[in-house]
Amino acid sequence: MKKIINAPENVVNEMLEGLVAANPEKLTLIPDKRVILRKEKKDAGKVAVVTGSGSGHEPDQVFYVGKGMMDAAAAGPVFAAPTADAIYEAAKAVDNGAGVLFMVKNYTGDRGQFGMAAELCEMDGIQVRTVIADDDVAVKDSTFTAGRRGVAGAILGYKIVCAAAEEGASMDELVELANRVNANVRSMGFGLTSCTTPAKGTPTFEIGDDEMEVGVGLHGEPGRERCKLKTADEIVSYITEQCLEDLPFKEGDEVAVMVNGLGGTPLMELYIVYHIVAKILKKAGIKVFKSYVNEYCTSIDMAGCSVSLLRVDDRMKELLEYPVDIPYSVF
Amino acid sequence: MKKIINAPENVVNEMLEGLVAANPEKLTLIPDKRVILRKEKKDAGKVAVVTGSGSGHEPDQVFYVGKGMMDAAAAGPVFAAPTADAIYEAAKAVDNGAGVLFMVKNYTGDRGQFGMAAELCEMDGIQVRTVIADDDVAVKDSTFTAGRRGVAGAILGYKIVCAAAEEGASMDELVELANRVNANVRSMGFGLTSCTTPAKGTPTFEIGDDEMEVGVGLHGEPGRERCKLKTADEIVSYITEQCLEDLPFKEGDEVAVMVNGLGGTPLMELYIVYHIVAKILKKAGIKVFKSYVNEYCTSIDMAGCSVSLLRVDDRMKELLEYPVDIPYSVF
Repeated sequence: MKKIINAPENVVNEMLEGLVAANPEKLTLIPDKRVILRKEKKDAGKVAVVTGSGSGHEPDQVFYVGKGMMDAAAAGPVFAAPTADAIYEAAKAVDNGAGVLFMVKNYTGDRGQFGMAAELCEMDGIQVRTVIADDDVAVKDSTFTAGRRGVAGAILGYKIVCAAAEEGASMDELVELANRVNANVRSMGFGLTSCTTPAKGTPTFEIGDDEMEVGVGLHGEPGRERCKLKTADEIVSYITEQCLEDLPFKEGDEVAVMVNGLGGTPLMELYIVYHIVAKILKKAGIKVFKSYVNEYCTSIDMAGCSVSLLRVDDRMKELLEYPVDIPYSVF
Repeated sequence: MKKIINAPENVVNEMLEGLVAANPEKLTLIPDKRVILRKEKKDAGKVAVVTGSGSGHEPDQVFYVGKGMMDAAAAGPVFAAPTADAIYEAAKAVDNGAGVLFMVKNYTGDRGQFGMAAELCEMDGIQVRTVIADDDVAVKDSTFTAGRRGVAGAILGYKIVCAAAEEGASMDELVELANRVNANVRSMGFGLTSCTTPAKGTPTFEIGDDEMEVGVGLHGEPGRERCKLKTADEIVSYITEQCLEDLPFKEGDEVAVMVNGLGGTPLMELYIVYHIVAKILKKAGIKVFKSYVNEYCTSIDMAGCSVSLLRVDDRMKELLEYPVDIPYSVF
């Protein structure tokens, strides 16, 4: 295993300590809970938004905590859900009287822990609503999921809903908006390599030097098909068409496009991918409102990427442009 | 070779077309020159800044073109300098009467092409000055370099000098500022794996499963030492101490810290690295002004990272905070 780590069992804690050390004025950590919080709470009367998942998908989730985005995020061990207790502590810490919205990707483990956390909150008198993202068109049901999986398209939902929460939208509006985004976003990806968790130290799955996994899951779970390596044009056209047909997107639609690197794929290749997606959309008469080409939701060090398309309306467009101040940034 | 590409000989052109497709209102490409320009020129009387290098180091250099950063960047083939002709065309396109500053990292190939481009500009009556970054403390002289190499610390120089140029600083001021940054920044890195260029398709150098290359160059050229894998604490302490001793940095200094991923290293590990650097600086009585933890100057898909420390003064601090609008961004 070639990783820049100390003991594998400490990677999440050391990452979180590094994150707080790099943002001492903005972020704080709940000791022993692996929860990252904004130091400064939202104004009273505004709904707080909390997310969480297993670690290994960075920048998702803890690097999205900050003004304009999440109020808190709970980091589980690598590829394992955070505990209900940690999520509950996160919610308690950020609730400001207007309740807490849980934004969760559709994995059975995460849904279970967030569900129990919601019950703990209710016993404390904290109003909680939960929204689920399931944007991956690759497979119906999967190793860790009943129904479709939530993948990178969910991050566009986080961006939009958190901006509305920052503006002071009501809980009902936020839930409606989150569901509207989820109903209008579709994603699909592929992996060229496996990922390697620090605890196991060897690749999660075997894959030949001339093979790729089409529709791979964020934890290396199987996708739709194992096939021989294809050119960028071939594979990107395929996954983009799958997204387009699923909704379906139509001529005249306006979309936000996300090309998401899975951890081990260079920016050069992500822009080669974007170039292909842009040509397909142009040909289909679909207008690009804004593009997002970077790493947003990764599988540790996997080589590969996903494409997400979100059909945007005016409200979504306005909220996508809302400023954020999060630790995942450039300058 | 596992890459998301079409033909290896087209990767740079397809990336550049993707970059312009993703930023149609802000960027443009000089056909056949592989030069990325801002669509909107700076105001007359302001110095333009141009950079360039071989491709494969993305986001460096073309993803740094935009307001507050570069006016233009010339992209060479993967790991080979752009031509003097392309750099000359870039300079001609962005000059607004106040001259052009070339910001170059210390590689023999790049210096040669930028030198010839400067001569072409002078024949055209375009004033050109050139500044060189050589922040890497790992080795004196190297495969592609006489003297020290320029690595990720150079990007802090780009950020600072381009902000001053945007504000309207004179050419003399910009040259002085660039040299002052270079005199106060030190970097060192290490690689756990080789990188693989699309043209060759196999790793640039051989390295054992239990080995690392300390002080590795940005093209996979040898560093200071090949050694057995070390823990994050061991190797990060070593490279940070090498930077500290070289300037030397002293108790009471204030620094900007950059932890730069080389392409294949996840954000989780970069923050584990930052955590170690922060502890060393605290113990040494050195204050962190601002931290930059992400990919800034990569070696395609290499696993590894570098640490850069810049001793900042008040002017540098102000310019580091100057807003930028570049394609390498998150939301």
